[in-house]
Amino acid sequence: MNIDKLLVPPNKAIKLKDYSPAQTEPYRAKADVEDKLENDILALADLQAMLNAQNTYALLIILQGIDAAGKDGTIKHVMSGVNPAGCQVKSFKAPSVEELDHDYLWRHVRALPERGYIGIFNRSYYEEVLVVRVHPELLAKERIHVSKKQDKLWADRYRQINDFERYLVENEIVVLKFFLHVSKDEQKKRFLERLEKDGKNWKFSEADVKERAFWDDYTRAYEDMLSHTSTEHAPWHVIPADHKWFTRVAVAHIIVQTLQGLKLGYPELDAAQKKSLKAAKQLLENEP
Amino acid sequence: MNIDKLLVPPNKAIKLKDYSPAQTEPYRAKADVEDKLENDILALADLQAMLNAQNTYALLIILQGIDAAGKDGTIKHVMSGVNPAGCQVKSFKAPSVEELDHDYLWRHVRALPERGYIGIFNRSYYEEVLVVRVHPELLAKERIHVSKKQDKLWADRYRQINDFERYLVENEIVVLKFFLHVSKDEQKKRFLERLEKDGKNWKFSEADVKERAFWDDYTRAYEDMLSHTSTEHAPWHVIPADHKWFTRVAVAHIIVQTLQGLKLGYPELDAAQKKSLKAAKQLLENEP
Repeated sequence: MNIDKLLVPPNKAIKLKDYSPAQTEPYRAKADVEDKLENDILALADLQAMLNAQNTYALLIILQGIDAAGKDGTIKHVMSGVNPAGCQVKSFKAPSVEELDHDYLWRHVRALPERGYIGIFNRSYYEEVLVVRVHPELLAKERIHVSKKQDKLWADRYRQINDFERYLVENEIVVLKFFLHVSKDEQKKRFLERLEKDGKNWKFSEADVKERAFWDDYTRAYEDMLSHTSTEHAPWHVIPADHKWFTRVAVAHIIVQTLQGLKLGYPELDAAQKKSLKAAKQLLENEP
Repeated sequence: MNIDKLLVPPNKAIKLKDYSPAQTEPYRAKADVEDKLENDILALADLQAMLNAQNTYALLIILQGIDAAGKDGTIKHVMSGVNPAGCQVKSFKAPSVEELDHDYLWRHVRALPERGYIGIFNRSYYEEVLVVRVHPELLAKERIHVSKKQDKLWADRYRQINDFERYLVENEIVVLKFFLHVSKDEQKKRFLERLEKDGKNWKFSEADVKERAFWDDYTRAYEDMLSHTSTEHAPWHVIPADHKWFTRVAVAHIIVQTLQGLKLGYPELDAAQKKSLKAAKQLLENEP
């Protein structure tokens, strides 16, 4: 799989129309990727165990995407093989009153993964330049000073987020960002599916459909976010999301590739530790 | 009081020998400042109440200084008039195992003051470029990759801290930083006092005296920290600390001046709110 095509180059203004949501290259159908996905999920479980044993890096995975883009499904299918004790998923909803009394990164910092862990943010501080930008009336609740020219606010937030992520990466927290890119037609299809299936319609609210009226505003906000916060240290991946099977295999592939790049390994015992283990073994064997 | 002399100018390499720890200008003795300190403490209480009512800004006060520089005493005497419900003091000791499993800012972010509050950090993330620099063997516990040329690490940390504080200030968390500058002779005097007084010797450990051997290393670490992290948005104040009475009046003065600069005020009621209060009053009065 060539993931370069999915990467957003740093310092480049991109348009989402140049990224097809339906693309599945180099695969044609789900059957083509079943073995690969299974292998990557197995590899992921091994890599996470080493991540934990080595206790140096943490992996922060950020998933963004409009409703029904497949964020929950991707987490479920890609991470299903990983020991849940080593993986922390945090879904960010509208901020609470206490959270609004803090700076906007505060609740996200609290949820950062510890060394040795994979942390997944299902939505994240990027909502502060997405839903808040499309609905700027939400800013009133944040109680910050906003000049009439809001453009500066979004530019400041991009810089603040880039600084924050650089700090994380410099402190061994690897940041992987996925934007699940779904088409308006596919969202409609998935919404209708949810409405019609008993096991899925609890996931639905009328507000989700009303939000479709802001589709173009969201597209502009995503484009601006991707253009300004894809950095050398924490690039964005635009994951085609009209085919769920492709979303999952692409995300799994990139996570595995990233963890492999860290050159993880189990800690090696030194002579003193080996001697100590040997002594422990003898003690056990000599028990009456 | 002319506080300009206590400020560290941004982007300037300073030497601590140019800041006298015994200086008390424009005052000569404790008696000269008693009224002023009392007035400032009263003003501080009023300003904190408005900070809380306005619910927009938070004030983060960072106190750094070597052992016995007077950090605890300053907090006690300056903040004694403030409603403790509006003031949160957090003393940072050696990090716990859980804290070491996170990036070094993590435990400090968790302790940030909410909007409307004064938060005081007694020691802070600056220890990461002070005690950790003087005793670099502590870095092993942080499990980050450090190249042999440690200089880059400290430069990176200064930049990370500057970025972090700029983010705070841009999000209405005002950052005030005080370095309590005490002389080596005065520390010795205070240590002897602690050893001799029953009510004070619980505060003492042998390690405190042994740390005096690193006095010059600490001086260099403080100078480098002050030279690189005194910024337009969050400047350092070097507070002469050989005379406790001067430390307290200087710190109180600067806090009051800073809060006054925020143009705080009680929220004004609009017509609808006034009507609602009137209705509530009538309801109470008409109770049988």
